[in-house]
Amino acid sequence: MYSIRTDLALEAREMYRENAQQESEIPGVQVEKEGDQEIIITRVKITSTDGEKALGKPMGSYITLEIPRLRERDQDLYEDTCRALAKELYNIIKIDKKSNVLVVGLGNWNVTPDALGPKVVSKLMVTRHLLEHIPEQIDEGVRPVCALAPGVLGLTGIETSEIIKGVVDKVKPDLVIAIDALASRRMDRVSTTIQIADTGINPGSGVGNKRMGLTKETLGIPVIAIGVPTVVDAATMANDTIDLVIDTIQKQVEQGSKFYEILKNMDKNEKYALIQEVLSPYIGNLMVTPKEVDAIIDDVSKIIANGINIALHEGIGLDDVNRYVN
Amino acid sequence: MYSIRTDLALEAREMYRENAQQESEIPGVQVEKEGDQEIIITRVKITSTDGEKALGKPMGSYITLEIPRLRERDQDLYEDTCRALAKELYNIIKIDKKSNVLVVGLGNWNVTPDALGPKVVSKLMVTRHLLEHIPEQIDEGVRPVCALAPGVLGLTGIETSEIIKGVVDKVKPDLVIAIDALASRRMDRVSTTIQIADTGINPGSGVGNKRMGLTKETLGIPVIAIGVPTVVDAATMANDTIDLVIDTIQKQVEQGSKFYEILKNMDKNEKYALIQEVLSPYIGNLMVTPKEVDAIIDDVSKIIANGINIALHEGIGLDDVNRYVN
Amino acid sequence: MYSIRTDLALEAREMYRENAQQESEIPGVQVEKEGDQEIIITRVKITSTDGEKALGKPMGSYITLEIPRLRERDQDLYEDTCRALAKELYNIIKIDKKSNVLVVGLGNWNVTPDALGPKVVSKLMVTRHLLEHIPEQIDEGVRPVCALAPGVLGLTGIETSEIIKGVVDKVKPDLVIAIDALASRRMDRVSTTIQIADTGINPGSGVGNKRMGLTKETLGIPVIAIGVPTVVDAATMANDTIDLVIDTIQKQVEQGSKFYEILKNMDKNEKYALIQEVLSPYIGNLMVTPKEVDAIIDDVSKIIANGINIALHEGIGLDDVNRYVN
Amino acid sequence: MYSIRTDLALEAREMYRENAQQESEIPGVQVEKEGDQEIIITRVKITSTDGEKALGKPMGSYITLEIPRLRERDQDLYEDTCRALAKELYNIIKIDKKSNVLVVGLGNWNVTPDALGPKVVSKLMVTRHLLEHIPEQIDEGVRPVCALAPGVLGLTGIETSEIIKGVVDKVKPDLVIAIDALASRRMDRVSTTIQIADTGINPGSGVGNKRMGLTKETLGIPVIAIGVPTVVDAATMANDTIDLVIDTIQKQVEQGSKFYEILKNMDKNEKYALIQEVLSPYIGNLMVTPKEVDAIIDDVSKIIANGINIALHEGIGLDDVNRYVN
Repeated sequence: MYSIRTDLALEAREMYRENAQQESEIPGVQVEKEGDQEIIITRVKITSTDGEKALGKPMGSYITLEIPRLRERDQDLYEDTCRALAKELYNIIKIDKKSNVLVVGLGNWNVTPDALGPKVVSKLMVTRHLLEHIPEQIDEGVRPVCALAPGVLGLTGIETSEIIKGVVDKVKPDLVIAIDALASRRMDRVSTTIQIADTGINPGSGVGNKRMGLTKETLGIPVIAIGVPTVVDAATMANDTIDLVIDTIQKQVEQGSKFYEILKNMDKNEKYALIQEVLSPYIGNLMVTPKEVDAIIDDVSKIIANGINIALHEGIGLDDVNRYVN
Repeated sequence: MYSIRTDLALEAREMYRENAQQESEIPGVQVEKEGDQEIIITRVKITSTDGEKALGKPMGSYITLEIPRLRERDQDLYEDTCRALAKELYNIIKIDKKSNVLVVGLGNWNVTPDALGPKVVSKLMVTRHLLEHIPEQIDEGVRPVCALAPGVLGLTGIETSEIIKGVVDKVKPDLVIAIDALASRRMDRVSTTIQIADTGINPGSGVGNKRMGLTKETLGIPVIAIGVPTVVDAATMANDTIDLVIDTIQKQVEQGSKFYEILKNMDKNEKYALIQEVLSPYIGNLMVTPKEVDAIIDDVSKIIANGINIALHEGIGLDDVNRYVN
Repeated sequence: MYSIRTDLALEAREMYRENAQQESEIPGVQVEKEGDQEIIITRVKITSTDGEKALGKPMGSYITLEIPRLRERDQDLYEDTCRALAKELYNIIKIDKKSNVLVVGLGNWNVTPDALGPKVVSKLMVTRHLLEHIPEQIDEGVRPVCALAPGVLGLTGIETSEIIKGVVDKVKPDLVIAIDALASRRMDRVSTTIQIADTGINPGSGVGNKRMGLTKETLGIPVIAIGVPTVVDAATMANDTIDLVIDTIQKQVEQGSKFYEILKNMDKNEKYALIQEVLSPYIGNLMVTPKEVDAIIDDVSKIIANGINIALHEGIGLDDVNRYVN
Repeated sequence: MYSIRTDLALEAREMYRENAQQESEIPGVQVEKEGDQEIIITRVKITSTDGEKALGKPMGSYITLEIPRLRERDQDLYEDTCRALAKELYNIIKIDKKSNVLVVGLGNWNVTPDALGPKVVSKLMVTRHLLEHIPEQIDEGVRPVCALAPGVLGLTGIETSEIIKGVVDKVKPDLVIAIDALASRRMDRVSTTIQIADTGINPGSGVGNKRMGLTKETLGIPVIAIGVPTVVDAATMANDTIDLVIDTIQKQVEQGSKFYEILKNMDKNEKYALIQEVLSPYIGNLMVTPKEVDAIIDDVSKIIANGINIALHEGIGLDDVNRYVN
């Protein structure tokens, strides 16, 4: 079965409700909103297998921060976003303040919109080796953090999850935080939305194709996933465009038109499948990104890195970060 | 008036003929085909103002090399393409073998699909200073070539054409070759097509928005433009997808459907305008590119650079190039 | 005549006085100190041809900021340095607040320690095109600034000064600010020292070899040079090491030793010449840099860029800069 | 005890013999020369603990290829070098042609002269995943190869050897090939020398400081190391310069000079220790590299990668490589 590609639980819920033309909440799904117009926080909790089926995502918590003005590069908004992310992250991480954390930057550093994970890793406060070798020079309230950007299957020939499992077996962290670039359904969410999930990374999610997951089941320790949409896939965009075009045209047509009826009555998934079929020989391996994607990935990776830095180290604020990061 | 975005004369001609449902050649346009299935060479010559109006491009010669298998990275095909490009270039350049040439790499090095020009410049044999300072160490049959990647308006605050004019006034070359990333209408032409034009760079063409041109009129010397499509714009892709979807659906609908008739009878430009309107609030500044665009730009810039290297220097073959290039 | 390589007027003065074993100030040279231990400001003024000869630099003002702790990446010190640089720059620039400025980033972006200039340019507030096309969206107190990183002779085949002259003729700025990586005599000054000079860029200075200058004489408008030492040349380092070794050994030797006497009595320039001669077949084209040179160039280029940003635009503070820079 | 820094067995042997002023071969060391003036191959075999002590390297085979003209970028020499490297590598690898190989690119991608390993990995034919998922599309004579650039302790907080051990436990290769940038004693060996060793990577070797090794003992499978000198350390260079200066001066001095005698009679290690002491407060963390180090690392990494590609895959020649590499 085809389905419109989204990695955001928020969007999966939106789409389910649109499709079902349903006003009430989906059974097995709880939703909570917070924040102001600058930073909108939505917490979607999937609590049953019904909820899982409806949204196509495993049970767990999905927190989304939407920051519509994030691309405007306002310094205050940047700092507020770092702190809001840190706060949400802090609340979802339930480990002792001395526990070890391994941060994994998923994705391909050679493909700009997939390079979010490696970029975040390059901006992290990595402290595990310092606490081991020169603990006396390290501030109070700094915990051991290590980090890895393992690359992708096409670059290494090794499943990412195999690499991470191997490293986890040696390093024995108490928690993994995995960063990944996501696909969104809507262009206006690209690089303005951050999702935190306590369900880890699931096969097939993210911009590159993961074949195996990074979850508590596979690694034996909790895995928090942080993702930011950096692309919309071409078929999704074409699909949404067609819907918009049809909506516009139908106002000029009497309702009885057969053609309109066919389009109108097509199941959403059928229509999307048709578009995918029609596009596939032409587009192969396309992505739709904003033109300034390089700068955007740079900015947003700094926010994610600093959100993690502040959340993980009790004794560290936004001003202290620079001393630790190369 | 809106129009589907293409920088290829080849496509402009295709689209004109599709729109006009015309079999015979467009008045004021001459076309000549050559080559085999590996490298298809099409020479479009616009010879009158009628031809100019029909194709929306100034009078002159437009040579297109289509190399469908170029992305497969076959070494023989790579070398054949360099040589075919060199041959076409050699024939269109009508200057003395000692004349000076300035190669200009247009585009923004921070935006991958717009970085073709700067990448080509970085792979060129730059010889002007060597012939001036150590002529005795330079092979016979090497002409003075200099090169510049001036950046784009957003990076410099200066119109690219102003920078080039200033440099041309000082350096006094006999010919300018300008490299630019192009937009194509069809995804399968992206990075498999090379266009050479003796009309220079015209305002509004290319991936970045040029506001002023680089032409014989503005610079006072001939300007050859070499371009490769690296993006398809989002509206074009949506438009083509809708056409394909409609064609597929219509087979299931009796011809009399009003909705179908509306779509069918809409002028192509009207439909495209509608799509642009519908998309604009959502997409702003989108581009559609292949996922592996970084590697593709690298490969194709090497072909363009070496095509130029062989075409410009009589005494230089593909094997000699490495000694001159960093 | 050989001489130890330094681009800093401060060091030229030190070396002259060491050589001459002279306590009093050099005739034609005025010196003024300011600042605290965090940021030491030295203003060297060469006021006569005697001073020119003594220091090997043209008449004019040379302001040096030494910030010994700069590599520690303290956020407060970073901001103080930006502001101190801006203040010195503001005082040395004597143009109207609406005048146009062209910032030139000299150096080779492919050679890390020579990439300072291009890096600074990439972090500048470029406003000339905005004030021309969308003046209503630009803050009060923002002046037109444009910027160019022209590359080096080996990359373009064109003397950098020719490119800049060509652009100056078209753009007609009122002032040029040229950024360049410098060579210092002492490793502890590398990336902790900033020099501002109102004499422009002179032939042979900087990390790459400039063959022609950028000065008021050549461009017709004032040229301010800003430089940061990023390398020590290999012969200088060997020379200084030998001096230190000799000083250490001599304490163990009676003063009458002939060998010691020879070394002691050698003219400094003779000794340096000997070292250069001895090293030349072995070292060719060496440079000595700190291991973390990539990160250092990144940091210091941000300081220079923001110092310029604040100095040039009256209405802009350190917090406003991000909105303008990509 | 101090000792001049070299990672080349060839140089360790040279230095031992210079120090000992010894003509005959060192006990426990066997040496064999081959090749022509373009590619000089030296095979040093350490066969006893006496040999280990003399050269400061573990027992095993060390093959050095010296290619003095390598920096001239001659295409024929480039291909000959790839093939010569492949041949030596092929002879030292004693595994079945279907066995799995893991290639590890050691070093820090942010520090140009330490980036050799990661660069080689990025140019390798990675085939393990292809043979697993699409074996029918892969040529005969291609073996499963996977690759990893694990980063350095300062970037990850994890000892490189821990990461590799973890991955080896999961992937279970039959052989590891580890690539590393080396320090040489002589500048003319930088980027013109390739060393292959069957002893793996030993603690403290290479440009970055390895704290733990990658050897058959630690990983349980054979480890082949391939290294290229990319730096000379600053103290080594100063030391060699002083020797050259002394040799030059002494010709002008009668032999009886006390000062000369002191220098002459100082033990080499003592003198080097003195230089290190004298330099240490000034230079900290210096390196001496050729100016064009970025281009050099690019070129030499291509040679290493293709040498490995041809050696590992029986069915693959230099012309086939491009189809597999991104």
